[in-house]
Formats: sequence, C-alpha cells, structure tokens
Amino acid sequence: MKGLWLENKELQFYADLPIPEPLPGETLVRVLRAGICNTDLELLRGYYPYRGILGHEFVGVVEQGPEDLINQRVVGEINAACGYCRFCLSEQPTHCENRSVLGIVNRNGAFAEYLTLPVANLHPVPDSVSTDAATFTEPIAAALEIQQQVSIRPDDKVLVVGDGKLGQLVAQTIALTGCELLTIGRHGDKLANLEERGIKIGFVDDVKDRYFDISIECTGNPEGFAIARRSLRPRGVLVLKSTYAGALTFDASALVVDEITLIGSRCGPFKPALQLLAQNQVNVNYLIHGRYFLDEGIAAFAKAQSPGVLKVLLEIGS
Amino acid sequence: MKGLWLENKELQFYADLPIPEPLPGETLVRVLRAGICNTDLELLRGYYPYRGILGHEFVGVVEQGPEDLINQRVVGEINAACGYCRFCLSEQPTHCENRSVLGIVNRNGAFAEYLTLPVANLHPVPDSVSTDAATFTEPIAAALEIQQQVSIRPDDKVLVVGDGKLGQLVAQTIALTGCELLTIGRHGDKLANLEERGIKIGFVDDVKDRYFDISIECTGNPEGFAIARRSLRPRGVLVLKSTYAGALTFDASALVVDEITLIGSRCGPFKPALQLLAQNQVNVNYLIHGRYFLDEGIAAFAKAQSPGVLKVLLEIGS
Repeated sequence: MKGLWLENKELQFYADLPIPEPLPGETLVRVLRAGICNTDLELLRGYYPYRGILGHEFVGVVEQGPEDLINQRVVGEINAACGYCRFCLSEQPTHCENRSVLGIVNRNGAFAEYLTLPVANLHPVPDSVSTDAATFTEPIAAALEIQQQVSIRPDDKVLVVGDGKLGQLVAQTIALTGCELLTIGRHGDKLANLEERGIKIGFVDDVKDRYFDISIECTGNPEGFAIARRSLRPRGVLVLKSTYAGALTFDASALVVDEITLIGSRCGPFKPALQLLAQNQVNVNYLIHGRYFLDEGIAAFAKAQSPGVLKVLLEIGS
Repeated sequence: MKGLWLENKELQFYADLPIPEPLPGETLVRVLRAGICNTDLELLRGYYPYRGILGHEFVGVVEQGPEDLINQRVVGEINAACGYCRFCLSEQPTHCENRSVLGIVNRNGAFAEYLTLPVANLHPVPDSVSTDAATFTEPIAAALEIQQQVSIRPDDKVLVVGDGKLGQLVAQTIALTGCELLTIGRHGDKLANLEERGIKIGFVDDVKDRYFDISIECTGNPEGFAIARRSLRPRGVLVLKSTYAGALTFDASALVVDEITLIGSRCGPFKPALQLLAQNQVNVNYLIHGRYFLDEGIAAFAKAQSPGVLKVLLEIGS
C-alpha cells in the first residue's frame, strides 16, 4: 500500500508498504482522509523519537472487524490501550501504561491506505458530518479535554493564547460555554476567522495582567506561556494545551504566592466532538488550507509548514 | 519597644522602636512568643524586598481592641486585607490586591514587643493550647491549605518531599487523612521524629517513579521539585508548598502528555489549625530546637540557619 514513512527526521513516500494485519480485537480501516497536525511536524523535526507511518487525524471505512462496523465511516481514538493496567482499570485508557499511539508511539499511523486500531477506539461518523469535517474530530476532542479538567462557567474570564489550528478549535469550543472569552494571536488573518464567528480577538497588548480566571496556552512557545501566566488572577488556572520543544522556565515563588494551578491537557473525548460537528456548533471548513494526494505527501508537509497555513488534508481514499 | 529590624539584608536589634498605633479596625497586640520561619531566613538573604520588623508566626495578648478580645491570648492571620477589592469581596482575603503581610510586605512584624493587626485577623487561643504550641498555628494553617485545594482520600498515595519545619507539619496533617503516605528527606534524625509518630519515612531512593497520586514539595529546591515530579502517576497533582530562590525549569511536554496538575499553595485557615492543636492531633513541641530573648535575636537567627535545626522561638513577653 501507499504510505508516508518517517525515519531519521526524513519523510518518504512508499508505494509498496505491506497492508497491516489486524490483531485480535483490532479492525482494519481503509483511510479516506487524514489531517496534518503540529505533532506530525514536531515528530518530523525529531523532537520525539518515532519511526514508522505518521498521522493520527483520520476518517476511514472499516474493512475488517465486527459486522456492525463493516463499511461504516469511522474516526478513531489514537491511544491503543492494554485493558489491564491500573489506568485502563480506572477508565483512563489515554494514560494506559502500555499504550501505543497511532502515528506517534509504536503504532503505524494514518498517512497510508490502511491502518489498524482496536475496535474500542472507533466511533462511527454520523451521516450529517462530512468526511472533511470528521477529520477534525481528534483535535476537537483534544480541545474538549480542557472542559473535562476545568469547569468553565459563563461568569469566567478566559484567555486563549494562540491563533493556530489548535487555538482556533479551543476558542470555538470554549466560546460555547458562554464565558467572557478573549483569543489572542499574532496573525490578523487567522484571528479574523474567529471574529467572524463572534469571538472576541486581540493581540498581546490587549491582555490585561492578573485579569483572567483561566488561560489556555496553545502556542507551544515560551512567550505564549509567559503571556498566559501573567494574564491570570491569583488562584487562576493555566491550561497547557501544547507540547514544547525543550524545557520551560517559570517563577515558582510567584506561582506559590498567587496559588496558581497549572494543568497539562492532552487527548479528549471523541463522542462530544462528533456531536458538536453533527450540530454544526464548531466550524472547521475554513481551517482547510490545502489538499494533497498521498504521493504528494512531501509537498503537503511543506505546505503545512508554510507561514499562515492552517490545516492541510491528505486525500487518501474514496 | 524592643524589636528586630531588617534593612539591606541586615538584621539589627533596637531597644527604642516606637510602639505602633493601631489604625481604625486594628488591634494592638503585645507579643508573647514568635517563631522563625524559612521565609524570614529568605527575607534576610534578600530574596524578597522588605524593610521593617521581621516575623509573622506569633502568639500575643490583645491590649487595645474590641472589649471581648482585651487580655485574650491570640494568634493572627498574616494578610491584612482591604475589604473591598475583588478578592476580598469573593472571600479570598489572603489574595487581597491591596494587602499588607505581617513582617513580609509593608507591615511591621512580630519580632517586637508589640504589633498591630486588623480585628478580623485575630483568633483567640483555646486555654488547652500552650503558648509554645500556638506559635505553630500559622505554619499548621499553611499545611492545611493543601487540603483546601486538593481533596486527599484514604485511598490516595501521597508523597511529602522534605523533612524540614514545613515538611514535618505537612506530613503530620496529611497523615490525618488516612492516606498511604511516604515522607522523604535527607536527615535521618528529622525523619525519625515522624517515624515515631507512625508516619512512613524514607530517602530519595525509596521513591517509586510514577507511583503517587499527589506529591507535595516542601524543600524549596529544584532537586525536591524533580523528585516530586517524577514520583507522580499520569494525572497526578504536584503541590508546591515552598517558595524558591530563582526560577524553576521543567519539561512542559511531559507535563502535557501526563496531564499533570501543578498547584501553588500558600496561607491557610487558622481555625482548623487551632482545633488540631487543641485536640493534640498535631505534635509540635519536638520541633522546638532553640529559645532566645529578643535582644539575642541575631544569635537566634544564626541558630535557625544551623544544619539540622528546626524551629527557633523568640521569648518576647509573658
């Protein structure tokens, strides 16, 4: 099969990769569409060790698996859990100690014609949700993880730092809470997308210090972290939604004096993400800035790394 | 009056400081006893700017104030709040935007014959609590703040890092929850105090990685932070109970992947602290390693900074 293989910080297109064999409890999924995420770009830069087929945002069709899933259009949770470790037993499979992660840790990913995932990871896509839109299920779920961790009420003042792919989805999902929301970034054109959707936008100078109850860092850079930190009132909550290259440094004494809570946030729930898409409560089409076939994968990654570009999709099957 | 005055990293004893005048709503307290805290040592080292009388852990007798408090033995909360800022109005006076803090920020402290504090800050000391013991109310309250922020249940695994003054009180208060508790430190003799009280103790090598639900950092040094961090299971909670000289550096990506919560913790509730002392549920007498009169203040600070020394008390009045 065709696929994009990462090895030694180099991505290569192959036309002759073996079609994977599903293990017991797994399904074989024919991939229709996939999205390039910042994590893919970071894996390509070598920030984390990974060797194999990249990709974890996808929509596919089940070819082998339980009868009621066959030929169903599905999306898939990316953490393949063992089912018996202390985290699986406490219903926290995304933290399974023995997990593999689609296209990220020890499991070939979605930038290929086929992938395998456990049955339990799959969610059928409602007919009303387009394949394009469903490709965003995974990042929308990641955005929704914030609200699994922090309760956000209409009277909360919330700052989202970052106007990239993730910041856009975080801003849209947080806006649904009815809170007082400000999203800041560096790119007027990206922010304009949110403004069109009725979300208040601004730049770094619009952030009042010690004003916000909750700030959400979606940039993955130390400047974004510093803004999110200083925007918080005492006893405020800083959500770290991005991974970072290298270590972060912070003033721990000020964190103690102000009793700030800092919370890391990763993968989230797929069901509500699909529901938001089905109800048109999150808009994703405007985020699509490019479409490429699998054998144009190298060009797709070049596009995804270009300034100002949001989501690049790979058209893999039909 | 006699007092210990800090200026330019130098502590000096004066016999002729003016007795403070209470403002409206304030009381005049004659100090009986006071304790030297690590924060005092840090202020002396110049980590934070402060000029004035040091000291914030004290027991005193009210000389001027409301009738029902006159001649009462009292302890006092250290944050003097304005009463009208957004934090005061939301019942978070310890984060008052206009606060002064006894012996720490803009308010002369307890290492003197007299101090002033707002009426609202004072708590009468039950007759059954000795003056020595009541001097520990403030640090016990600080230890109890942890449980205001994080719910600790009997089935939680909790690590306390640090066997100093604060670590001892944190360990004792956390032990009351019935959780699985391990306290580690570097000093066998200090840890032995806790072991005698039925608390499990150990050294750094006894800490299992990714095992604890909650870790509490009471050392104020980066090594302690690193141990507390690596001891946590995914989705664990790291409480920062100490202030730090300089900045802390951490692996933010790992924090995101493991969805760790980091929470700063400062001043806590006095009432339950006094209650624990009245019920003999926290033992403090063994922590007293020295007693000095006010005019021996310089020697008292030298003692407090000596290796292995826990609490040093100042005998100020009777």
